[in-house]
Amino acid sequence: MAKRLEIVAIERLPEIQPGDDLAGLIHAACEAEYPLTDGDVVVVSQKVVSKAENRLVKVDPDDPMSHKPLVLAEAKRVLRRRGDLLITETAHGYVCANAGIDRSNVAVDIAALLPEDCDRSARRLRDALNHRLGSHVAVIVADTFGRPWRRGVTDVALGCAGILPILDLRGTPDATGRVLHVTEVCIVDELASAAELVRGKSSGVAVAVVRGVDPAWFGSGSVVGDVVRSYEDDLFR
Amino acid sequence: MAKRLEIVAIERLPEIQPGDDLAGLIHAACEAEYPLTDGDVVVVSQKVVSKAENRLVKVDPDDPMSHKPLVLAEAKRVLRRRGDLLITETAHGYVCANAGIDRSNVAVDIAALLPEDCDRSARRLRDALNHRLGSHVAVIVADTFGRPWRRGVTDVALGCAGILPILDLRGTPDATGRVLHVTEVCIVDELASAAELVRGKSSGVAVAVVRGVDPAWFGSGSVVGDVVRSYEDDLFR
Repeated sequence: MAKRLEIVAIERLPEIQPGDDLAGLIHAACEAEYPLTDGDVVVVSQKVVSKAENRLVKVDPDDPMSHKPLVLAEAKRVLRRRGDLLITETAHGYVCANAGIDRSNVAVDIAALLPEDCDRSARRLRDALNHRLGSHVAVIVADTFGRPWRRGVTDVALGCAGILPILDLRGTPDATGRVLHVTEVCIVDELASAAELVRGKSSGVAVAVVRGVDPAWFGSGSVVGDVVRSYEDDLFR
Repeated sequence: MAKRLEIVAIERLPEIQPGDDLAGLIHAACEAEYPLTDGDVVVVSQKVVSKAENRLVKVDPDDPMSHKPLVLAEAKRVLRRRGDLLITETAHGYVCANAGIDRSNVAVDIAALLPEDCDRSARRLRDALNHRLGSHVAVIVADTFGRPWRRGVTDVALGCAGILPILDLRGTPDATGRVLHVTEVCIVDELASAAELVRGKSSGVAVAVVRGVDPAWFGSGSVVGDVVRSYEDDLFR
């Protein structure tokens, strides 16, 4: 178990353009600010991944609703509507507002779609970073989602590579020796939330590094495979 | 905006008994391991708060279901059932499994109920810590909840004191100058999740300190008042 974590914002990533070598730019920014080392978890905003992967669509800058047809095209299911807000299930299986499409931190005539496969995006970034570094880091692609029951948004993982998405403690004893029955902790969501605390929404900081995680958390798995609940398995859809 | 956070587990809090001076014991443990300073956020597990406040009930140690009548008594509404699992709304308004009652990290013949008022518990801890320290810390009382849409549990805030539960960014510009419309970030839930990464489930570490948060986040508010959605406001109840 990690006893001390450090979470650091990487502030000087340049504005990302379609086709940019995102891993190279993240590597360079980290080298300048907080050089990466074995065991670091690099949390990257979905927005810059979408930009690098050219998941950008032109919209009418004068119409705040001009991205709505994209929402309906990207949504597999619309679960709820309230005014302009659609709570959707995406093709990936994420449940979020407006199919994850948003217009913040992009040009006024652009809407950013989610990456096609955020786990694959994370794997590519992880592989490219490790190739450059000659070390082992993990990557989480994070975005900001609302949730039922509770007001306010928090960051969650959309994709990951090099880290176990869920820490499975079933069968391990608690501090009193009792076996924990139902404790599977979604550490990638907790890491995404932790990183948001230094990335912020208004500052446009796209990358944060979490240092000090338990080496036992490094491993394989995917958010879509391990975290996203299926429609059939969910009690609230 | 914070640019660097440190999250540290406080490992040597003694086993808490009903009536214990929890603030005094947390203060002493922190003094020995990581002395508190102005601006720290102290994240405390609900379990030790429930122990100190004697929210403990005897149950039959040989019957794993013997706490179920307590669940029904503590639940205001049962939203869903699946086998032994009840998804409930508590009197406080939290939506969680089994009315937040659990039997991990307590003696085998004990079930721990949630505190009566976790925001009040947080305020009392905060006031007592600040009185001892002569400085200003914030307190979050955290617990581990499941959620719809996504597998795995994460920690959320049940109560807080001295910190804004929700950071309201509506009306502030993003990095491109566009006004952010719907961004209210639940920083207390993100801080609870971040703290869980060093506290763990099986280690019984009840306290973690987050150092480095933006001083602008210090302020007043409550989880039940500001974070918990009302039944009427929720699209999924």
